[in-house]
Amino acid sequence: GFPGAPGTKGESTYIQRSAFSMGLSTKTSLPNVPIRFTKAFYNEQRHYDDSTGKFRCVFKGLYQFSYHLTVYMKDVKVGLYRNNKPVMFTFDQFQTGNVDQASGSVLLHLDVGDEVWLQIYGDESFSGIYGDNLNDSTFSGILLYPDQDNL
Amino acid sequence: GFPGAPGTKGESTYIQRSAFSMGLSTKTSLPNVPIRFTKAFYNEQRHYDDSTGKFRCVFKGLYQFSYHLTVYMKDVKVGLYRNNKPVMFTFDQFQTGNVDQASGSVLLHLDVGDEVWLQIYGDESFSGIYGDNLNDSTFSGILLYPDQDNL
Amino acid sequence: GFPGAPGTKGESTYIQRSAFSMGLSTKTSLPNVPIRFTKAFYNEQRHYDDSTGKFRCVFKGLYQFSYHLTVYMKDVKVGLYRNNKPVMFTFDQFQTGNVDQASGSVLLHLDVGDEVWLQIYGDESFSGIYGDNLNDSTFSGILLYPDQDNL
Ligand SMILES: [Ca+2]
Ligand SMILES: [Ca+2]
Ligand SMILES: [Ca+2]
Repeated sequence: GFPGAPGTKGESTYIQRSAFSMGLSTKTSLPNVPIRFTKAFYNEQRHYDDSTGKFRCVFKGLYQFSYHLTVYMKDVKVGLYRNNKPVMFTFDQFQTGNVDQASGSVLLHLDVGDEVWLQIYGDESFSGIYGDNLNDSTFSGILLYPDQDNL
Repeated sequence: GFPGAPGTKGESTYIQRSAFSMGLSTKTSLPNVPIRFTKAFYNEQRHYDDSTGKFRCVFKGLYQFSYHLTVYMKDVKVGLYRNNKPVMFTFDQFQTGNVDQASGSVLLHLDVGDEVWLQIYGDESFSGIYGDNLNDSTFSGILLYPDQDNL
Repeated sequence: GFPGAPGTKGESTYIQRSAFSMGLSTKTSLPNVPIRFTKAFYNEQRHYDDSTGKFRCVFKGLYQFSYHLTVYMKDVKVGLYRNNKPVMFTFDQFQTGNVDQASGSVLLHLDVGDEVWLQIYGDESFSGIYGDNLNDSTFSGILLYPDQDNL
């Protein structure tokens, strides 16, 4: 008889990617609205919208979000929001002559369409996040584990 | 005769995942024992045990560990422990009216069964890590490179 | 008949890896030259050269760089350099009795041969980065998304 058919092809990993790394260009951050990070270190897929300040999930999976904030002139209280609900808070007090750094990171599983952003939590007295050409405040995110049923 | 049986399937990439992202629910952290982070942002595989405060390695490979601590009322000195030995230390002093943030991250190659946790290093005077509903202190870890001989 | 030939191999992800996680062994950091982190938490591929303080890109792709610095005795102003140009800055002021922590992280797409390092930005008065056996200052990097045309 004839040889059998060739075996089936092995599974491949279709590669899904989503990442952004943005910096603050402005010296002030308004309360009650998403903070807009407009300096792009990386935003290839444009899943971070610098006109709204929001990241929008295109690929379901586990993401890492990180932020590093320069605390200057005022205290800083910031919430990491997911769809209008703050899920994590970072608080750092300022004292004259003592610029500080405050940072946070978290892993979150997101569904398609979920939005994530940073926002001052409270009034203007908590809005001391600073950025200029020589002082960065940054916000980054990256898809680390795409859901397997995406593939 | 009949055709032979189909060939064997090609190699696939079997996907190994391990990640946790936890927050502190309590206002105080005891010295000399692992800090228990009991608020789960993500702990799907349950490799972080919130009853002991320890992460236990199930898949051999390279992990990233990160922590972000709110420093309040006391100084903070914390060690990142691997199997009863501190491998990295973070120190931040507190002054009245100046809540601070202290953070650390490291890449560690772990073997199956290795345990990793955070613990106050020193006496109670170094235990000023704070967490409540609106102030987070967090500890996260993720398997970034599973060892290739796992596959 | 005989069994068929084996199936073709699935597209496998040829695995490219590059990661380092280093700590400061020395109490002082000189301005105007790359900071040399000589304590290795992980440096398997040796893409970080602890004799120069520079990471050198071997695999094109998206990298995450993170640093966590102990601020002691002096202010700290540090630049993350890519090929002789600072791309990100972190500033933290020191006050007596108030050791601080300053951190930064960013995602950068690198080409083969690109070099990345940390360096004091400004004169010696900004060089207050501290490290010893029980106080860490660290610098880490990891290839998260190798370029697909590498494969
Ligand atoms: Ca400071
Ligand atoms: Ca502070
Ligand atoms: Ca401090």
